[in-house]
Amino acid sequence: MPQLRLALAQIDVTVGDMAGNAAAVVARAREAAAAGAHLVVFPEMTITGYPPEDLVFRESFRAASRATLEKLASDLAAAGLAQTAVVVGYLDEDGGPRTASTLYLDERAGPRNAAAFCLGGRVVATYYKHHLPNYGVFDEARYFVRGDRFTVVRYRGVDVALTICEDLWQDDGPFAVAGQVGVGLVVNINGSPYERHKDDVRLRLLQRRAREAQATVAYLNMVGAQDELVFDGDSMVVSADGALLARAPQYIEGVFYVDLDLPTTDPVIPEHSSMRVETHDTQTAAVPSFRKQPAGIAEPMSDEAEIWGALVTGTRDYVRKNGFHSVVLGMSGGIDSAVAATIAADAIGGENVYGVSMPSSYSSEHSKSDAADLAERIGANYRVVPVARMIDEFVETLKLTGLAEENVQARVRGTTLMSLSNAEGHLVLATGNKSELAVGYSTIYGDAVGGFAPIKDVPKSLVWQLARWRNADAEARGERAPIPPNSISKPPSAELRPGQLDTDSLPDYGLLDEVLARYVDRDESVAEIVAAGYPPDLVGRIARMVDAAEWKRRQYPPGPKIGLKAFGRDRRLPISSRWRE
Amino acid sequence: MPQLRLALAQIDVTVGDMAGNAAAVVARAREAAAAGAHLVVFPEMTITGYPPEDLVFRESFRAASRATLEKLASDLAAAGLAQTAVVVGYLDEDGGPRTASTLYLDERAGPRNAAAFCLGGRVVATYYKHHLPNYGVFDEARYFVRGDRFTVVRYRGVDVALTICEDLWQDDGPFAVAGQVGVGLVVNINGSPYERHKDDVRLRLLQRRAREAQATVAYLNMVGAQDELVFDGDSMVVSADGALLARAPQYIEGVFYVDLDLPTTDPVIPEHSSMRVETHDTQTAAVPSFRKQPAGIAEPMSDEAEIWGALVTGTRDYVRKNGFHSVVLGMSGGIDSAVAATIAADAIGGENVYGVSMPSSYSSEHSKSDAADLAERIGANYRVVPVARMIDEFVETLKLTGLAEENVQARVRGTTLMSLSNAEGHLVLATGNKSELAVGYSTIYGDAVGGFAPIKDVPKSLVWQLARWRNADAEARGERAPIPPNSISKPPSAELRPGQLDTDSLPDYGLLDEVLARYVDRDESVAEIVAAGYPPDLVGRIARMVDAAEWKRRQYPPGPKIGLKAFGRDRRLPISSRWRE
Repeated sequence: MPQLRLALAQIDVTVGDMAGNAAAVVARAREAAAAGAHLVVFPEMTITGYPPEDLVFRESFRAASRATLEKLASDLAAAGLAQTAVVVGYLDEDGGPRTASTLYLDERAGPRNAAAFCLGGRVVATYYKHHLPNYGVFDEARYFVRGDRFTVVRYRGVDVALTICEDLWQDDGPFAVAGQVGVGLVVNINGSPYERHKDDVRLRLLQRRAREAQATVAYLNMVGAQDELVFDGDSMVVSADGALLARAPQYIEGVFYVDLDLPTTDPVIPEHSSMRVETHDTQTAAVPSFRKQPAGIAEPMSDEAEIWGALVTGTRDYVRKNGFHSVVLGMSGGIDSAVAATIAADAIGGENVYGVSMPSSYSSEHSKSDAADLAERIGANYRVVPVARMIDEFVETLKLTGLAEENVQARVRGTTLMSLSNAEGHLVLATGNKSELAVGYSTIYGDAVGGFAPIKDVPKSLVWQLARWRNADAEARGERAPIPPNSISKPPSAELRPGQLDTDSLPDYGLLDEVLARYVDRDESVAEIVAAGYPPDLVGRIARMVDAAEWKRRQYPPGPKIGLKAFGRDRRLPISSRWRE
Repeated sequence: MPQLRLALAQIDVTVGDMAGNAAAVVARAREAAAAGAHLVVFPEMTITGYPPEDLVFRESFRAASRATLEKLASDLAAAGLAQTAVVVGYLDEDGGPRTASTLYLDERAGPRNAAAFCLGGRVVATYYKHHLPNYGVFDEARYFVRGDRFTVVRYRGVDVALTICEDLWQDDGPFAVAGQVGVGLVVNINGSPYERHKDDVRLRLLQRRAREAQATVAYLNMVGAQDELVFDGDSMVVSADGALLARAPQYIEGVFYVDLDLPTTDPVIPEHSSMRVETHDTQTAAVPSFRKQPAGIAEPMSDEAEIWGALVTGTRDYVRKNGFHSVVLGMSGGIDSAVAATIAADAIGGENVYGVSMPSSYSSEHSKSDAADLAERIGANYRVVPVARMIDEFVETLKLTGLAEENVQARVRGTTLMSLSNAEGHLVLATGNKSELAVGYSTIYGDAVGGFAPIKDVPKSLVWQLARWRNADAEARGERAPIPPNSISKPPSAELRPGQLDTDSLPDYGLLDEVLARYVDRDESVAEIVAAGYPPDLVGRIARMVDAAEWKRRQYPPGPKIGLKAFGRDRRLPISSRWRE
């Protein structure tokens, strides 16, 4: 039985940085070849980064992707890797240029989400993604034309089939064809965004598809983040009988190896098949038999560790990929800013985090001491900027009372943070959580200002849970807990009027988050939620608050998606709507 | 030859207001029947409003649409309209409930963008949209499953085929099938958003499809606006030989009539056809011959009048459909705020417009006098709120200089407007134009604050052109020109530092807008634009400014789309991107 050492190159690429991404491929392929790998697999759209969104409509972008691929194939050979096979994702097109306004679902020519098999200085074979996801955060029917070719490459005695991401998630695609044709290995390259509990789903799905294809399946996912999406890695190899042979860790960039015994198959071209079968023979001899090394199988992370990893990765890559080196945020002494600041410190180092306490006349003493405590614990820079005089000028000039007076406090703080950003070059972080954002319990242009919002998709109950976990985890490692215990235990307050508590305006967060998970994440109706046992008045009130806050959410900065449905591309609701459940 | 009086019910519906929309159908159908109409046609998704976006994923919403349709059919009969045929758009589904996460492009069951033919108290036939647009502002592959049934209803001796919107724009759909089958009339119901110069394209397309179908085609479009989309009406009827028989005005809600001689056809079910042909016979006798009345053919509007109509309609419906009665905006004396205020006054009346002059120490004398002049001309409320002291507090407390000092002025003004909105309940209008938004020449959380941005999609050159047109048009009608001539003629300045002019930071607006039309609207590369004769340095600089401002645009309020590609749903670019042309 032929053997192969497969390298899973779980790397972080940057949208639009084609030269940089190609250089990373060469460097990682060289590292893999030095470790004896015969086949090195890179993520979906390695060359362009993923998702490139409407950049796909620029002819110059598509041309650059193709040119970069050709150059990469020859650079790999020039780097002494002519005998090592490399699979990369890229943007291809056929049928000539087209633009957004002419691209239509049904057309048979146009841009392609593609994979290339490179060997010996050239592109030996290409594959076009068959199943194009067009739900949730995905708009691939907008960008790509689906492929109908099933691509098999015979390499060192093994028939290797190429597939991309969504091909794994839908029936009747290349995995089914693989089962008809008979191949030794199916490679599946991914830009699969993190979502809670998705890792278990992926493994079960892989096992199912491996059985369907009657072949070993290598699933390779990118790591890193792009705007609201976090790619968690978690690359895996599963044998034809469903056994997990290798599993790379989540969020860690690197090359991971697995030695495989793979059958030589005798591909048959089926008479009836949903895809046209195309075979390529690289005319390469089988690898001389070698002693297999045991592959790593990463332990699954806890739910909290996995979420924290997503938030840190999302924040780190947003800061880095947008050319920032530091962040500034308001430190109120509350749990949200404490968790956001700790994520930032874990992402880019506490020394690059700038905390600002902005006490007004309604600020409690503990809001200042807890903020200072936090900064000290995470090693952040810290300053106090009193804002009472700026607020007073507005209140007096405009004779503000009530809600207008509450909001102006938040807006003076927002303006203060933006001024510090302008003056010192930090990225401003917004510290709102998903529960607040859902019901509109935030001040637009106030606490909502910022370029990025680390806990935008984290419900308040989970904010507390993560804080406790992060502290316990630090203590278990013998480190100091980063989040002041007082910030965790005290009742939440916006401190915009004397003695104010969140519970004055909102239901208990535990209850609120349960209803929001149904109404927002699962699109349940008010009637369905009430039928599940929640008080009708409460559910109706929450639904109205969520609907009325749509306009504010549209102007909120991006933040890492961790849940089933994040506010952003994932959830597209009209602002003008009279629909009331 | 049978005759029919066709009523084009060009109405404005509201997303989610199913009871209200159905009531409007009954009222308009009654009006049409009283005028002797035999067939009354309403827009795409009449019942739900269009586009309902992710509301489609709520089972309760889909169920309500179906229930509202059934009730509407019976309400029409109860209103004495049992003998009048009514075509309405609605949201249907088949194959049981499904959610965003399971909806997939290829599935054969799911939500449908549907049309119903109602007669005699019941739904006689339904049609499911065949071509689903998934480009530009459209995401219909996300929401709907395409229909493959071609629906013909024999009504009073005429075979009437049903089609929906995009069916008109793509080849190989129901128009082609109509030509094979042989029908007397093709009804095409629309939610077709306004775009400059689209009306001429529509007419030519209709003429082409009428010839293809060998039948009279009735094109019915909605009027009104939904968030960023404006529906301009412009409903038309074209005969089989391409003659324009009737044309309704743009932007005007109403019922428009056309008397038609239509052949009785003898439909044949073709052996090979891209859609399954389904015929229904309503068993109704031909209408006794009547004397045809001449139909109205609305004169095409000038380019400026048409754009102005779109901006006024977009602003009016956003204000109204979101429950506001008044707007507030900063009046700087400049051209942008003058045009935005005039649009608002035309939309909701000058008495509901609240202008605020917010002079700082850098404000010129004419900025105040021109603002007061504007308010007086359009009959707006007007006040002066000096902001120098608030600005000074920030500048002194934070020791601001340079850009930070410029921005804080804009942010103090933004906070002032939001405070007045909180205190008095007005919707805040942002007054930025498309050129500024493109290159990021605006202050986020400053002049960019607001719930709606009337000239967001209007390039600066066009802002001036519209201002001149609006003034000349008023004068031609013997009315006072609304826009102070001085606001049109003076060189534009943000007045954030002494003697500042826009041209200090930006190229001449005429040149800038030409480059932006290529780079933004047409996705041309820098190399292509340079090849067209523009200076390389300038084009490169503009492209970099556009790319770097993406994060700010994401947080900008919605505004009416008038161009080929508006910032918003129409143009989806990554924030994190290293792509440089």
